[in-house]
Amino acid sequence: MCSSRLSGEIAIRVFRACTELGIRTVAVYSEQDTGQMHRQKADEAYLIGKGLPPVAAYLHIPDIIKVAKDNGVDAIHPGYGFLSERAEFAQACSDAGVMFVGPSPETVRKMGDKVEARSLAINAGMIRPPQNDAQLHVVLRLAHYSGPVVLFLDIGSGEGRVVVICELEENYQRAYSEALTAFGNGALFVEKFIEKPRHIEVQILGDKYGNVIHLYERDCSIQRRHQKVVEIAPAFQLDPHLRDRLHADAVNLARQVGYENAGTVEFLVDKHGKHYFIEVNSRLQVEHTVTEEITDVDLVHAQLHVCEGRSLPELGLKQDKIRVNGCAIQCRVTTEDPSRGFQPDTGRIEVFRSGEGMGIRLDSASAFQGAVISPHYDSLLVKVIASGKDLNTAASKMSRALAEFRVRGVKVGHSAKCAPKGSSFVHTLHLLPTGGGQRAWWRQCPAASPLSVCPRVAVATM
Amino acid sequence: MCSSRLSGEIAIRVFRACTELGIRTVAVYSEQDTGQMHRQKADEAYLIGKGLPPVAAYLHIPDIIKVAKDNGVDAIHPGYGFLSERAEFAQACSDAGVMFVGPSPETVRKMGDKVEARSLAINAGMIRPPQNDAQLHVVLRLAHYSGPVVLFLDIGSGEGRVVVICELEENYQRAYSEALTAFGNGALFVEKFIEKPRHIEVQILGDKYGNVIHLYERDCSIQRRHQKVVEIAPAFQLDPHLRDRLHADAVNLARQVGYENAGTVEFLVDKHGKHYFIEVNSRLQVEHTVTEEITDVDLVHAQLHVCEGRSLPELGLKQDKIRVNGCAIQCRVTTEDPSRGFQPDTGRIEVFRSGEGMGIRLDSASAFQGAVISPHYDSLLVKVIASGKDLNTAASKMSRALAEFRVRGVKVGHSAKCAPKGSSFVHTLHLLPTGGGQRAWWRQCPAASPLSVCPRVAVATM
Repeated sequence: MCSSRLSGEIAIRVFRACTELGIRTVAVYSEQDTGQMHRQKADEAYLIGKGLPPVAAYLHIPDIIKVAKDNGVDAIHPGYGFLSERAEFAQACSDAGVMFVGPSPETVRKMGDKVEARSLAINAGMIRPPQNDAQLHVVLRLAHYSGPVVLFLDIGSGEGRVVVICELEENYQRAYSEALTAFGNGALFVEKFIEKPRHIEVQILGDKYGNVIHLYERDCSIQRRHQKVVEIAPAFQLDPHLRDRLHADAVNLARQVGYENAGTVEFLVDKHGKHYFIEVNSRLQVEHTVTEEITDVDLVHAQLHVCEGRSLPELGLKQDKIRVNGCAIQCRVTTEDPSRGFQPDTGRIEVFRSGEGMGIRLDSASAFQGAVISPHYDSLLVKVIASGKDLNTAASKMSRALAEFRVRGVKVGHSAKCAPKGSSFVHTLHLLPTGGGQRAWWRQCPAASPLSVCPRVAVATM
Repeated sequence: MCSSRLSGEIAIRVFRACTELGIRTVAVYSEQDTGQMHRQKADEAYLIGKGLPPVAAYLHIPDIIKVAKDNGVDAIHPGYGFLSERAEFAQACSDAGVMFVGPSPETVRKMGDKVEARSLAINAGMIRPPQNDAQLHVVLRLAHYSGPVVLFLDIGSGEGRVVVICELEENYQRAYSEALTAFGNGALFVEKFIEKPRHIEVQILGDKYGNVIHLYERDCSIQRRHQKVVEIAPAFQLDPHLRDRLHADAVNLARQVGYENAGTVEFLVDKHGKHYFIEVNSRLQVEHTVTEEITDVDLVHAQLHVCEGRSLPELGLKQDKIRVNGCAIQCRVTTEDPSRGFQPDTGRIEVFRSGEGMGIRLDSASAFQGAVISPHYDSLLVKVIASGKDLNTAASKMSRALAEFRVRGVKVGHSAKCAPKGSSFVHTLHLLPTGGGQRAWWRQCPAASPLSVCPRVAVATM
């Protein structure tokens, strides 16, 4: 059973993997989602959250557990939305005697608490950007030794909302007042500002017996409004020694917490090639697809096998057997209108034709002629994953496939729509050699202001 | 420019490759094909064969050449239908100063003449099934030494229509009379009968400078009415020494004729592991996709590069760089009704949803909601190619993807529809260990008589 909906895309992804393994599947859906594709792709489907608003329905843990118990469900896959990183949901599954396809509730909790995750990382010998409960004198000292710093009102959320580059005392005072208003106290967090960083994340996989492997890394530096929009695996033009250190750090951290199932360890890399730990995502990621394409490891298959108690070596998943083959890129086709600052659009899809062919994998949600796009959820229609023997080949296939899409009835955009006029996606990718060049791309986007498209990882340069 | 139509699928395949390489594309279409997808996927499209019936339009060489000359076309890709193996078409292109994306007219002619191809193969040290202009005493002698034999009325067609297992004099006389009626003379050809053979073919690629490589082999033993329906790469459970010999023989033959561009050398393998040359297809094959999936070589890119004079080493296509990665299977979704003996169906597609996701590549023709399926051409809607780390994984992905298809308006079938009731495609593939077990599968098909589904390669056992 998959408790996630998101755009329905991850639920469908999980059902496909189950079907391939001969496992019967159960979907849950809200009252607003009776016509959604994820309901049809499962063997059985049950309504949850009757009378509740759309998102609240999928957060209704008692209803989800009830469906599982009433229908003899053995395991729940949390997808990557809503409940996937909530320790109480993992615990509720455990209490009900239903397997949770993910880490233990304790690990989910530790990783969800960004302050605890940070100290775990430090214990594992990893470097975080210098950070403190920010008294003014601390901030000034840090700024003195490390250069510019970034202030967060609330590091615990993981989103780390950036307020201001703290170069002047008056900015600190303004942030303090804001924190006082928003959270009832003036607690501020401060981190060293990392100029033009890359966002590199390492896919990890652990089993119940302490085995942990990595499945190489993804470059997710291209972001818009704090959301990753283009993901690439492996990270291109990355120093081999740095790559090795990222992998080793990720595996060490996971070993230290006895990490089980799939997860991601996220890093920033500064322009000097120094890397900083950000956080662990204790679930599957939207961009897991690019890792699957370059390693030929079906991550959802692996999650299910690990959950049922099989060891990684038994699954053939030994570190020295995991090889990178070529390059993969993921873009998202969404019901967003590039000409209106990527505002989500709704309506009925009257025409839907996608790009396909060699090197193109499609993971779609409700992307078909006749589908009704509601305002309630994520605007993702379909993830397009292009693979090739190298970055150039993958990029040219992506560019070609995106150009083939024909969607009528709702406005659509895709990750490459921000590219400067007259340039193809291929050309655009060529503009992104290393470290932070990414921002140059988004800066050139005529449809959105620099601020609205600034990648989270580079946000403090604005 | 692509002169082929078939179901439009190969034209679209070629246009995609061209777009990826920055080459503008030109389609040709018949009067009956104004609404077909291949027309829309090209940058420009021109009508040919005005007033002619559908198939005749695509065979109208002067019209095709005129479109090319009038519109500054540099090269014509013949696809794999209609004109792709006609030496006079390759010659007409050459005469008009337009590049033909394929071997030289001389090579196309030699390979098209199956008798000449046979003697070339013998010169290259390859074994063909013992064969002769079949005088009765020769047939009897061959039968005496080699066991059962097969009589062909016309070996030159390449299709080698089988008449009878020649065990008795009276069967010979009947075949002789039939040949006399059909061809005006009583010429018969006889070959040793190979019991339960496998059909294995080797993909080759040559350049203008005498370099020839192979891209491993495909197992195409599963056939219906002389048509391949399920193709697998690499061939499973094939003796490594035999595999090496097949590759070496294919490359030797290609070197001997100075083979340029993509081609396929086809073999039969008997139950003792002995291999026999059948023929060379001097063009891309419908099943080239599975080779692309396991080698990561884009064969159409390679064809275009070779055609413009680039050498294989320059393209990174050296033999020791070509590696097999995993396994791939191709099935075809067609507008054929399995419940009516796979008769083609026509009409308007009212609903079209396909399987997709990890490991699934789709190469479709006019497979979309609203498409009109005419009776004029091939019944192929879409080729589904499943890849995985091994045969089991690829088969389970194929099985799952085929189950996801929803097509309304026309009756559809797919290659796996003949599987015995209650068994999945996975199970079916498991029934096919080696050498000729294939036939067992088709034999169990309730919808078609054994004779109508007999694979060409095993036909003489009927």
